[in-house]
Amino acid sequence: MTIFQKILDGEIPCHRVYEDDHVLAFLDVSPLSRGHVLVIPKEARATLGELSDRSAEAIGRVLPRLCRAICAATGATDYNVLQNNGSAAHQAVMHVHFHIIPRQGERGLGLDWPAQKLEEDAAKLAASITAATTG
Amino acid sequence: MTIFQKILDGEIPCHRVYEDDHVLAFLDVSPLSRGHVLVIPKEARATLGELSDRSAEAIGRVLPRLCRAICAATGATDYNVLQNNGSAAHQAVMHVHFHIIPRQGERGLGLDWPAQKLEEDAAKLAASITAATTG
Repeated sequence: MTIFQKILDGEIPCHRVYEDDHVLAFLDVSPLSRGHVLVIPKEARATLGELSDRSAEAIGRVLPRLCRAICAATGATDYNVLQNNGSAAHQAVMHVHFHIIPRQGERGLGLDWPAQKLEEDAAKLAASITAATTG
Repeated sequence: MTIFQKILDGEIPCHRVYEDDHVLAFLDVSPLSRGHVLVIPKEARATLGELSDRSAEAIGRVLPRLCRAICAATGATDYNVLQNNGSAAHQAVMHVHFHIIPRQGERGLGLDWPAQKLEEDAAKLAASITAATTG
């Protein structure tokens, strides 16, 4: 059982900022910046790809409201929303979670962005992704 | 007008992977890894906090399907979903966009994670964010 399931079950306390039938949001206990919030589905799934459409749309719907509220409460204007899937992508707790991370001066999310050129077979790649979305 | 609006308007081509009434997804032309996709609302808003609930839930709903399709098409198992708001948070195009970035060996999103301890006034901070979500 993950620590987030224990929070959902009330076994571990959290600093809750939002809750509805599908979603819980609370302060990250190891924040990158003041107002760093985690938004999780009540549905227990490890990765976003495993999550139901219903839970995913419920999270999507509340993200703008939470972003506005965090900015209003902290004075931040800029922020990152990040959701990691799999240990190679830095996921630490195996229950879906979206980070909302305000930029507070030097504090916030650090990104390394080694962009490259688009592959020559991009059209074929796009077609194969499209085919998989309808599969 | 942003480059994403020009893509939505058909003035600039893209490698499209998904489209519905509210959402367009296409290959990033400067990918961090093979299968790096951008998911944007058709609604023209600069930041997630400005986006309508309807557009935000439509993006949320399709994210799991797109994540699965990208993994199926590229063989990736791990991936990051990232959405940046404001130039201090590394936003480059001022139209809301979610990145889906597969991890492909050494390629993918690099993160710097300078986590700190939760502030002593966390309960007060959580209460002020909660108040702002209902305001």
